[in-house]
Amino acid sequence: MDDLDVYKQQGFGNISGFGERPALLIVDFCVVFNDPNLFGGGNISDAIANTRRLLECARNKKLPVAFTRIVYADDGSDVGVFGKKAKGLEKLTEDVAINQIVPELEPVPGEYIVRKTQPSAFFGTGLLGWLILNKVDTVVVTGCTTSGCVRASVIDSMSNNYLTIVATDGVGDRAIGPHEANLFDMGQKYADLMSCDEIVAALSKQKAPG
Amino acid sequence: MDDLDVYKQQGFGNISGFGERPALLIVDFCVVFNDPNLFGGGNISDAIANTRRLLECARNKKLPVAFTRIVYADDGSDVGVFGKKAKGLEKLTEDVAINQIVPELEPVPGEYIVRKTQPSAFFGTGLLGWLILNKVDTVVVTGCTTSGCVRASVIDSMSNNYLTIVATDGVGDRAIGPHEANLFDMGQKYADLMSCDEIVAALSKQKAPG
Amino acid sequence: MDDLDVYKQQGFGNISGFGERPALLIVDFCVVFNDPNLFGGGNISDAIANTRRLLECARNKKLPVAFTRIVYADDGSDVGVFGKKAKGLEKLTEDVAINQIVPELEPVPGEYIVRKTQPSAFFGTGLLGWLILNKVDTVVVTGCTTSGCVRASVIDSMSNNYLTIVATDGVGDRAIGPHEANLFDMGQKYADLMSCDEIVAALSKQKAPG
Amino acid sequence: MDDLDVYKQQGFGNISGFGERPALLIVDFCVVFNDPNLFGGGNISDAIANTRRLLECARNKKLPVAFTRIVYADDGSDVGVFGKKAKGLEKLTEDVAINQIVPELEPVPGEYIVRKTQPSAFFGTGLLGWLILNKVDTVVVTGCTTSGCVRASVIDSMSNNYLTIVATDGVGDRAIGPHEANLFDMGQKYADLMSCDEIVAALSKQKAPG
Repeated sequence: MDDLDVYKQQGFGNISGFGERPALLIVDFCVVFNDPNLFGGGNISDAIANTRRLLECARNKKLPVAFTRIVYADDGSDVGVFGKKAKGLEKLTEDVAINQIVPELEPVPGEYIVRKTQPSAFFGTGLLGWLILNKVDTVVVTGCTTSGCVRASVIDSMSNNYLTIVATDGVGDRAIGPHEANLFDMGQKYADLMSCDEIVAALSKQKAPG
Repeated sequence: MDDLDVYKQQGFGNISGFGERPALLIVDFCVVFNDPNLFGGGNISDAIANTRRLLECARNKKLPVAFTRIVYADDGSDVGVFGKKAKGLEKLTEDVAINQIVPELEPVPGEYIVRKTQPSAFFGTGLLGWLILNKVDTVVVTGCTTSGCVRASVIDSMSNNYLTIVATDGVGDRAIGPHEANLFDMGQKYADLMSCDEIVAALSKQKAPG
Repeated sequence: MDDLDVYKQQGFGNISGFGERPALLIVDFCVVFNDPNLFGGGNISDAIANTRRLLECARNKKLPVAFTRIVYADDGSDVGVFGKKAKGLEKLTEDVAINQIVPELEPVPGEYIVRKTQPSAFFGTGLLGWLILNKVDTVVVTGCTTSGCVRASVIDSMSNNYLTIVATDGVGDRAIGPHEANLFDMGQKYADLMSCDEIVAALSKQKAPG
Repeated sequence: MDDLDVYKQQGFGNISGFGERPALLIVDFCVVFNDPNLFGGGNISDAIANTRRLLECARNKKLPVAFTRIVYADDGSDVGVFGKKAKGLEKLTEDVAINQIVPELEPVPGEYIVRKTQPSAFFGTGLLGWLILNKVDTVVVTGCTTSGCVRASVIDSMSNNYLTIVATDGVGDRAIGPHEANLFDMGQKYADLMSCDEIVAALSKQKAPG
């Protein structure tokens, strides 16, 4: 019996579904994560290109859109244990060029920028309150890395009882093994897996929220 | 360049270290997760046996010890999206036999039992307040599953700035692929990986906290 | 210029309003808080009687209903600083008679019981996830004490971006000075103040949620 | 029997005490809250002057120091229910002059600036992680307003099991009635009340943390 059979036999891997009020959450697509000499590489550039299509669709449908960035204080006073495990994180401050959202996905006014210091987009941020304010019931997640900040954000999205959709080709990672392994875990236990095209198709069928 | 080289080159996988006031966190070692016909299997039984040695050491050293259980209301009023992805979770109520902590690890008075409804031991629980109350700086994690509630709890432990240690042979999973993949992710980004024997040795060198 | 004028001049005290999907939150109406020789007194008994009418209305309208109780572990392992400030709190364990919800308001299956260790109904509990699961946008609060667990819960409800309504005669306190002072603060900054009759009237005008 | 007698008889109002690793938390002492024509008035200016003495002491003792500011996005995308109750809050953006910390208390590098959108300094912020990182056990609170962001922050500090000290003459409010009423509530249930001079004296007796 292989791994997938075990999960199936034990009742995992069901579809949780797509609700009526989706929002798009774009995790950490900043310059630093799109440069293989910094924290990027792997399939991250492709994921950015795919996310661009999804972002255009979300804007056309006037969905709530949020972006995350990792931002530490200039003096490093809020860099903690995460910065011990991963050297160089402390360079991700507000104004440095490498820490701006990639130009392909530049936010427009009214889109929400979440500044965070930890993997999850929800940890120590206003994201949850913003989702509640916007009466969201479904969180569509793209971004990077699949095995890092995407995975952590997806766990918290599901734990807060949002229907959660991971865009399989809108998330990327510096290495493909962890990318695949984390898609498996998320699909079995936390989120539905859909391609960007499938998500665009699903959004196109939706009525505008009342 | 293989995955590990990428992580090394980009600055991941450093040691965050062992602090002065460790606590032991034992995640979801309940009967249901030690039965391959329910949610168990894989290397979970071995992880329980290894955790027993670690628990004895922690009790001898009078460390704070916490256990988690997944517990839903009898009427299912608090089963949400997690229960949609994983069928059968809703059976994990307070009093059913399968949802008791395994006899090998039965808690003693003064040890803290965390009831949770989501993967992370921190989500919607009093665990963080209990760690602060006990002036803990290091969280040693055992339990199951490696790819599920352990991983989620480790992310939150690190995100709260606790030095976090995963007991590599004290955590287990129903399938070995996800177990290994999640150990890799955690070791690179969130926690130090040590065997139960290495942790026992580290604890033995420590002075009692002031 | 009296206090109220200052608040008015500075822009406080506006109405935030009643949304489309209200829930009823009943805070800590347990036997111990309805006994003047324990933690009760003042106008708490009246508030329970008024809440009963509101609860009947909520049940007729099939609104989500949640109750809170303060519940500590039998061994006291989760009693922290709150128990240092208020002696006797540690007696509020799961099974003692004084810590059961008052018979006038006995919950029925499907109503959600929140066990908490701190003033706020949101702190370390699953309440927020339950509100999201039930697509709530408005939290109507009754309970006790106005200056304690009600106030703390109202701050968190508003901070999470729920429209928040305090039932002025459905909340009570052991002493009237703090009761009045906290109604003032909440009405100016966090919540709309309405009597139970006004809330029943508002609910009667609502359509059932879609 | 007056209010205070009721509290005393029921076991409230005990001293929780001063720990070994205090931090200073300065809440919302920004220009806008020191101007009676904006959100200021009452005894806030005096509280700033008293806080300055306390801040100097904290710096001499090299205690961790955190400041909070309310900061909304320039496009208002994160202004929620709080902004409905209190008109004008949405003007508190990152760069406007009225929203800078008062010059008397200008932070120095290494001091932590918490940006928040809700009353509590803990809500959706990194404050808790910063306290854990700095191994704090005692939070000394000054700032404004006593009945607003100070009260909310004190509840959360205590709820997280920090020994909490309110500097009675280091906190201020636009109106004295709510200031006094909230000092009463906090002193009875959540925090110890000490003057700035008493706190300076207590800090002077402490050894530097190990």
